[in-house]
Amino acid sequence: MPRYRMLIEYDGTPFVGWQRQANGVSVQGVIEQAIGKLTPETVTLKGAGRTDTGVHATGQVAHVDLEKVVSGDTFRDAVNFHLEPHPVAILEASVTDESFDARFSATRRHYHYRIVDRRAPLALDRHRAWHVRKPLDVAAMREGAAVLVGHHDFTTFRSTHCQSRSPVKTLDGIDITREGEAIVFHVWSRSFLHNQVRSLVGSLRKVGDGSWTVADLAAALEARDRKACGPVAPAHGLSLTTVEY
Amino acid sequence: MPRYRMLIEYDGTPFVGWQRQANGVSVQGVIEQAIGKLTPETVTLKGAGRTDTGVHATGQVAHVDLEKVVSGDTFRDAVNFHLEPHPVAILEASVTDESFDARFSATRRHYHYRIVDRRAPLALDRHRAWHVRKPLDVAAMREGAAVLVGHHDFTTFRSTHCQSRSPVKTLDGIDITREGEAIVFHVWSRSFLHNQVRSLVGSLRKVGDGSWTVADLAAALEARDRKACGPVAPAHGLSLTTVEY
Repeated sequence: MPRYRMLIEYDGTPFVGWQRQANGVSVQGVIEQAIGKLTPETVTLKGAGRTDTGVHATGQVAHVDLEKVVSGDTFRDAVNFHLEPHPVAILEASVTDESFDARFSATRRHYHYRIVDRRAPLALDRHRAWHVRKPLDVAAMREGAAVLVGHHDFTTFRSTHCQSRSPVKTLDGIDITREGEAIVFHVWSRSFLHNQVRSLVGSLRKVGDGSWTVADLAAALEARDRKACGPVAPAHGLSLTTVEY
Repeated sequence: MPRYRMLIEYDGTPFVGWQRQANGVSVQGVIEQAIGKLTPETVTLKGAGRTDTGVHATGQVAHVDLEKVVSGDTFRDAVNFHLEPHPVAILEASVTDESFDARFSATRRHYHYRIVDRRAPLALDRHRAWHVRKPLDVAAMREGAAVLVGHHDFTTFRSTHCQSRSPVKTLDGIDITREGEAIVFHVWSRSFLHNQVRSLVGSLRKVGDGSWTVADLAAALEARDRKACGPVAPAHGLSLTTVEY
């Protein structure tokens, strides 16, 4: 029974998120439906990252086990054909062995969070970036990021709905770069808590606009209290870009 | 009577194009309506480039004459407020004198045309780039571009609906760069014929995928016959990026 591994790009705007749900169209659901056009089997996809409503991906990874045997390239092209008109594309597909698990074999996940920092509203980037009107100080946000990286109790920076057993995680890195009006946060770690990246970016933004000092951010981390978190950054600035194995 | 000059960004996807029309929502129309919320005057906007349906802009320029006197910044913020929820943003506005005309004072217009050259369909760039499946040879397209730049009769490369008196124009330049899967054509000139950029890119693509030689492209230019043009590139890859004065 072949296991197919897929690299996936999607525009998260029209979806309720990655995970299949009763109340709307999910990325997992439309890919499972597309694969279901190729085989009468019951199709269950397993993804590396369960992205929320409105969150994008340029490098999501998933696997699926099927009785049907085809080459990776044939599988990719056939699934893409049946994915139309949804804004989801299988970039690569290959046949792999059962030791590979898209979720549990992942050793590192990379996210990008994009802010456009300007006075005027966003036209072209409306669903792709967070519009922040106040000028942000990237150097101050980098100082704040240095406080957050490392082994910490991230209770402040996870959703109250987070199902992880422990809030204690090692955050491997946060790089912040400015390209004109755009500020990109590259955040990477073995795994993340629910809403962790958006919570971190939302709080770093408070440091960037001067309403928090770096000491305020450190105190928020230390508080281990969800109420100490800054306003969570909106979903549409976030993309899952790479999963390492 | 102040003349307001505006720098404008828009996502062309939901519009019938720049120009006000009876049969749909235009960029010009929604900006005129937004300005109309500020003053009882009849508002007529004049733009530098009449972009087609689906064509985007990051640097369109327009002007409007109004009795109402406010600062450029106040004008920009008020118009942006009334533009919601349309994906159109006034990036800058200033008060200028009547010697400035957004259309006739322009000395050079710059367009970018974006291709994504890969096997898989586009998810995130679906409305922002032309998806070309065959691998394109950028060096060959640069050779072809060199044939097109300069003073020529561009009858082959303009729409049969083009209203310019003469098909003879000087094309100042075409730069072609590849960044991974993306190929960007930067095309600039004092002015353009109707569908000229999309016609040039569509024909250069034939050179890029090997179905035309550079000599075939030269023959198409020489033919001065619209029927000699390659398939016109789709609108959604095109953006008006800069207008020089």
